[in-house]
Amino acid sequence: MIILGIDPGLAILGFGIIEKSEHNLTLIAYGTVTTPQYESTPVRLAMIDQKITDLIAKYNPSVVAVEELFFNTNVTTGIKVAQSRGVVLVSAIKHCGHLYEYTPLQVKMALTGNGRADKKQVQYMVKAILNLDSIPRPDDAADAIAVAICHANTSQFDQREIK
Amino acid sequence: MIILGIDPGLAILGFGIIEKSEHNLTLIAYGTVTTPQYESTPVRLAMIDQKITDLIAKYNPSVVAVEELFFNTNVTTGIKVAQSRGVVLVSAIKHCGHLYEYTPLQVKMALTGNGRADKKQVQYMVKAILNLDSIPRPDDAADAIAVAICHANTSQFDQREIK
Repeated sequence: MIILGIDPGLAILGFGIIEKSEHNLTLIAYGTVTTPQYESTPVRLAMIDQKITDLIAKYNPSVVAVEELFFNTNVTTGIKVAQSRGVVLVSAIKHCGHLYEYTPLQVKMALTGNGRADKKQVQYMVKAILNLDSIPRPDDAADAIAVAICHANTSQFDQREIK
Repeated sequence: MIILGIDPGLAILGFGIIEKSEHNLTLIAYGTVTTPQYESTPVRLAMIDQKITDLIAKYNPSVVAVEELFFNTNVTTGIKVAQSRGVVLVSAIKHCGHLYEYTPLQVKMALTGNGRADKKQVQYMVKAILNLDSIPRPDDAADAIAVAICHANTSQFDQREIK
């Protein structure tokens, strides 16, 4: 089963693609989608839509797992991320059809067993679980891989299928 | 010139389509897109994407005018509206290509000459400018028509074209 994990954002969006086999999780690809600040928000959102569509076409994931928005104190950033997230959700549901959302708490729990784990612990576990030589960079990509692992390791009963 | 005005939202989104001729503005159609609360957010966003795509295919507007997000104190509502707005912007830019955004202040100024005008004044002007017998209902539709009128009545120099 191929899982595409996404950490949404407007300026930078992380993605990670893993394969779940009977006993293994394997990292297939990861990276970021960056959109230039000199472009308007709608153009940047359309770039994200296109890139997600391309990723789904290329890797044909069975499932897309998206991190839920943790709304911080910066409302302007929050709006941008929420707009990007809306675009990602629609692209995922249109082109893949199987979409799951996980809160940051769920991701931390699934990877470290501790809902209050810090970013470093989560990243360490990404490296350990996937048997990598180093932590994937940048953070946005590592976060997206963590969401994909969270989906892979969460029991069927805890999953919240969207469609 | 056909103008599609949109007031974004997740549970209810308003739209209004007007035609601008040399001396006249004519109301062509208006209404709302409502999405059921029992559906997941991604499914509701996909419904909005489809409906905007359908509206653009049906009325073939030269321009889509979208109200900018006025972020109120309710963060949860704000996230929902922002996600919907992101979907609307991408759908508009993909299927129409000409997209303008107006703040609530700009809409009020364009319709009433007063940036602090209340909703009733704006709605009254929608009725007066379009020579209607009554104010279009519900409010979301009237707001969307106001955004379309704002675009029609704003001078070229004040317009902010996105693409």
